[in-house]
Amino acid sequence: MPSYTPPTKDQQFILHNVLNISKMDIPGFADLDRDFTGAVLSEAGKLASEVLAPLNAVGDKQGCSLKDGVVCTPDGFKAAYTKMSEGGWMSMDLAEEYGGQGLPYIMHTAAMEPMVSANMAFNMYPGLTHGNISAIVTHGTDAQKAMYLPKMATGKWSGTMNLTEPHCGTDLGLMRTKAMPQNDGTYRVSGQKIWISAGEHDLSENIIHLVLAKIPGGPDGVRGISLFIVPKFIINDDGSVGARNALSCGGLEKKMGIHGNATCVMNYDGATGYLIGEMHKGMRAMFTMMNEARLGVGLQGYAQGAVAYENALGFARDRLQGRAVTGVESPEKPADPIIVHPDVRRNLMDQKSFVEGARALTYWGATLMDRSNKNDDEEAEALISLITPVIKGFLTDKGFETCVLAQQTLGGSGFTQEWGLEQFVRDARITMIYEGTNGIQALDLVGRKLGLNGGKTVIAFFEMIKTYVADNKADEEFKANFLEPLQEASKDLQAAAMYFMQNMKNPNDALSGSYDFMHMMGHVCLGFMWTKMGRASMDALAAGDTDTDFHNSKIATGHYYMSRQLPATKMHLSRINTGGNTVMALDAAQF
Amino acid sequence: MPSYTPPTKDQQFILHNVLNISKMDIPGFADLDRDFTGAVLSEAGKLASEVLAPLNAVGDKQGCSLKDGVVCTPDGFKAAYTKMSEGGWMSMDLAEEYGGQGLPYIMHTAAMEPMVSANMAFNMYPGLTHGNISAIVTHGTDAQKAMYLPKMATGKWSGTMNLTEPHCGTDLGLMRTKAMPQNDGTYRVSGQKIWISAGEHDLSENIIHLVLAKIPGGPDGVRGISLFIVPKFIINDDGSVGARNALSCGGLEKKMGIHGNATCVMNYDGATGYLIGEMHKGMRAMFTMMNEARLGVGLQGYAQGAVAYENALGFARDRLQGRAVTGVESPEKPADPIIVHPDVRRNLMDQKSFVEGARALTYWGATLMDRSNKNDDEEAEALISLITPVIKGFLTDKGFETCVLAQQTLGGSGFTQEWGLEQFVRDARITMIYEGTNGIQALDLVGRKLGLNGGKTVIAFFEMIKTYVADNKADEEFKANFLEPLQEASKDLQAAAMYFMQNMKNPNDALSGSYDFMHMMGHVCLGFMWTKMGRASMDALAAGDTDTDFHNSKIATGHYYMSRQLPATKMHLSRINTGGNTVMALDAAQF
Repeated sequence: MPSYTPPTKDQQFILHNVLNISKMDIPGFADLDRDFTGAVLSEAGKLASEVLAPLNAVGDKQGCSLKDGVVCTPDGFKAAYTKMSEGGWMSMDLAEEYGGQGLPYIMHTAAMEPMVSANMAFNMYPGLTHGNISAIVTHGTDAQKAMYLPKMATGKWSGTMNLTEPHCGTDLGLMRTKAMPQNDGTYRVSGQKIWISAGEHDLSENIIHLVLAKIPGGPDGVRGISLFIVPKFIINDDGSVGARNALSCGGLEKKMGIHGNATCVMNYDGATGYLIGEMHKGMRAMFTMMNEARLGVGLQGYAQGAVAYENALGFARDRLQGRAVTGVESPEKPADPIIVHPDVRRNLMDQKSFVEGARALTYWGATLMDRSNKNDDEEAEALISLITPVIKGFLTDKGFETCVLAQQTLGGSGFTQEWGLEQFVRDARITMIYEGTNGIQALDLVGRKLGLNGGKTVIAFFEMIKTYVADNKADEEFKANFLEPLQEASKDLQAAAMYFMQNMKNPNDALSGSYDFMHMMGHVCLGFMWTKMGRASMDALAAGDTDTDFHNSKIATGHYYMSRQLPATKMHLSRINTGGNTVMALDAAQF
Repeated sequence: MPSYTPPTKDQQFILHNVLNISKMDIPGFADLDRDFTGAVLSEAGKLASEVLAPLNAVGDKQGCSLKDGVVCTPDGFKAAYTKMSEGGWMSMDLAEEYGGQGLPYIMHTAAMEPMVSANMAFNMYPGLTHGNISAIVTHGTDAQKAMYLPKMATGKWSGTMNLTEPHCGTDLGLMRTKAMPQNDGTYRVSGQKIWISAGEHDLSENIIHLVLAKIPGGPDGVRGISLFIVPKFIINDDGSVGARNALSCGGLEKKMGIHGNATCVMNYDGATGYLIGEMHKGMRAMFTMMNEARLGVGLQGYAQGAVAYENALGFARDRLQGRAVTGVESPEKPADPIIVHPDVRRNLMDQKSFVEGARALTYWGATLMDRSNKNDDEEAEALISLITPVIKGFLTDKGFETCVLAQQTLGGSGFTQEWGLEQFVRDARITMIYEGTNGIQALDLVGRKLGLNGGKTVIAFFEMIKTYVADNKADEEFKANFLEPLQEASKDLQAAAMYFMQNMKNPNDALSGSYDFMHMMGHVCLGFMWTKMGRASMDALAAGDTDTDFHNSKIATGHYYMSRQLPATKMHLSRINTGGNTVMALDAAQF
């Protein structure tokens, strides 16, 4: 069975040395000192490693089962769910008036990471509930908030998102699910939704479905979509659970991974639903969940990479095979540990430098969410909006790749179920697909986000890097190893953005390069994070921090990323510059 | 269930338009005219698509089971094995005197491709037998050949390779399995071997294990390893099957994929074995199997990519979602097929351009094997030796990546078992690991093959490209779209080789870049193949070939590869040029 050790020290480094969160001018952040976050994160890590991690392989092997409309989750999930609920982990960032702890989103994000690493399939149950809570907080009436939030805050009730239909995934305008208005102000919701994660299960007393549907007579396409609260059990006036609603789970998908999470076909047969948010403005409400979900999925991507890397590293230190090419390193053993071999290290450094950079990017993104929500900071809102598709798309592509690299470190053992690496690969694979495939993220980035605020947001992103470089170039070594590669990569990214602007007249030219642009921007973001981490470690050493191994490792890993990963931007740029001609050359029939 | 259509037309294009095999000066090649190869390949394709493909998902779901030492293969495997045997497919390239058909290796390679695409796990049973046959042909005595080959030629007996032990994978010098010499000239073989594909099963009357073991008193390390024939049942003097030998299957691995193939723990408890080849020279004999197996694994990589691509293409043509960004294309439908979207096409073109390029490289490699074996052509032998790690490492990395891309084309459907794409991903994953992990291939390439014949072989490789460019530069469009990108990429590869030569004093500098070099060389090889394919199609069109869609598609796909894939060489080169410092910077404890 794979091991899992929470990355508390690395998390603290990012929160305090790099982001310096307790000094951020955001309500509630002053309380987030090193002791407080350390206590929270070590408790979260304990739950993750002691309770959730041991259930990961169990969930994969047993999966979920459907019998007479009831879904059974794997052995141990119910008890773990109760423990998580009792610890108050499900609603750390919900206002105290609704039963939450009123902490910033960054704390929720950081606390969730170890749980996702330990057991991604399990964590989707509370994870979806969290997104659901956010939608109700933002778009629900006071009565709706009072009715649902306290019960969901404890996990007593859980939540889902219902978007997809068999003929309608990305293109929600094709939606067929209908909501017929009733005289009492409720709606009767009818239709079939598919791929509903946590759609039915035995973990909570009630399941609060948020369902996209069309009210007949409304506008065509996505402009006619509304969002409805459709609970599994109707709620009585006293808040207790009443009659079963007219909805049911019609089947479970058999999937490549995340077997522990029930992926349901949901049938709504005139189920009672309650409009949430404005009529026909359901897409807006849906995007509240969706944007949060996309950040959460980005986290899933690198969090699977993180646990996979931990196990690859352990294997590489233990497995004796061959001798170092520069001379025997462990003469007392029959062979040297494989970590001595350059290509094994190259593989490990790729994993390490990605995981740690991705963690920093995700946490920084979470602080932007807090700045946006708590300070009504429009600049922060625009910036997180710009980088959300990068966090989702790049971190999941590379997170999956990291799992594959980690599996490769183990050689044949990586292919066996016994070592558990292959499960990380299978589980991580979904992150590139759900909440909008990564192709859709790239389209969102190039087609919508680059033009946000008339292009001012992306310009501000470039300015931020430029300013950082200008402010920090005094140190020659730092300049050569970090700032110059960052500047170079950022210039490539600007050149690509320029290419898109100059070729707007043929959208195929821009969109043929969208995926490359997303990856390029991902590298620039991670390069920026590594620059900040490198600086933070240099500063710590200069200030007399005695944990020299830790900080030297950060500096060296950052240097690795800058010199061996950032050169990818040139490749992406030259692809982008070829435009759409070769991409669109063939007729569909000619393929 | 996924579809499978054999690529007969593409195969014929490569064999005849590109390689012009019937004009090659190799014994037997004159018979390989278009009609003959077309007849063979369409029969092979029929067997693959009608018999093997329908068993692929069955094999995955059922897997193999072990009970009382007996392994049961999935339903239908036995009947399919019999059909394959009756068709003479198992030994096409074995001499007729031993029951084969005496055809060149290129025909075996081309005929196997559809079978591997259709059902990789199944095809490993005859595939391993084939490698085993080659070892006996090359290293066996006349008596051994007469005893084993005719039975193996028909598949009545099958074969395996036994290398790995629990503590000894890549580092065969650590081997513990012993072979004690007996007075009658036989040996008693004792030890445990793991990960033995097709080690035990119910498809053949006997299983001929080739087992690496050490004869006590021999040299230490790999120099003291010998190869033994250890049959499951001892063979009587009249060639019939006699008593059970002292060996048994001790367990089956549970794996990520290739469930239809039995991966066995094999226990040898004083089993009777017969030395094959010279005493203590077992590694040499083993490499006969291994080199062939590596080419076969490269084929597996792209063959899984090929069937995955076929299914991605079908989905992209059928699935209606969204509208083309340049205007509605199918106004009569509720949405356009997703193949209209630039990023979907980018994804499909990546798949297509890889699969078709990889097929050409593999077939060209097979003709080099024939030139080497049938003409005793040392230049061809050196060249195939140079590119074998590239075929194995690059084609399996990219083959797996192609399966992942194809899965991505299907969005959520790609993650479900129902559509079958996820099986291709899981099955393809092993190809990057077995027969020497791809890291080992990169080490072989940079550490051994670059220096082959004092570096003359790699220089000949570069000269071959240079000569081709010089001979074909008259056509301006061809020059711009194919020759110049090829030349550029080839220069990058030379610069990398030069870096290694100049930094020999610190082997870590070279080996830190070995993986990048392997990929770089893979791109140059595929770029060379696309250049030849592009030229062949231009020539066909100029000569009045009326299949303009086919040839224009080849030219456009080649142009795509040259302009969008070859730029990767610059990225790899800049990584290589950073040397080993950042790779080797950390102590093992500092990670």
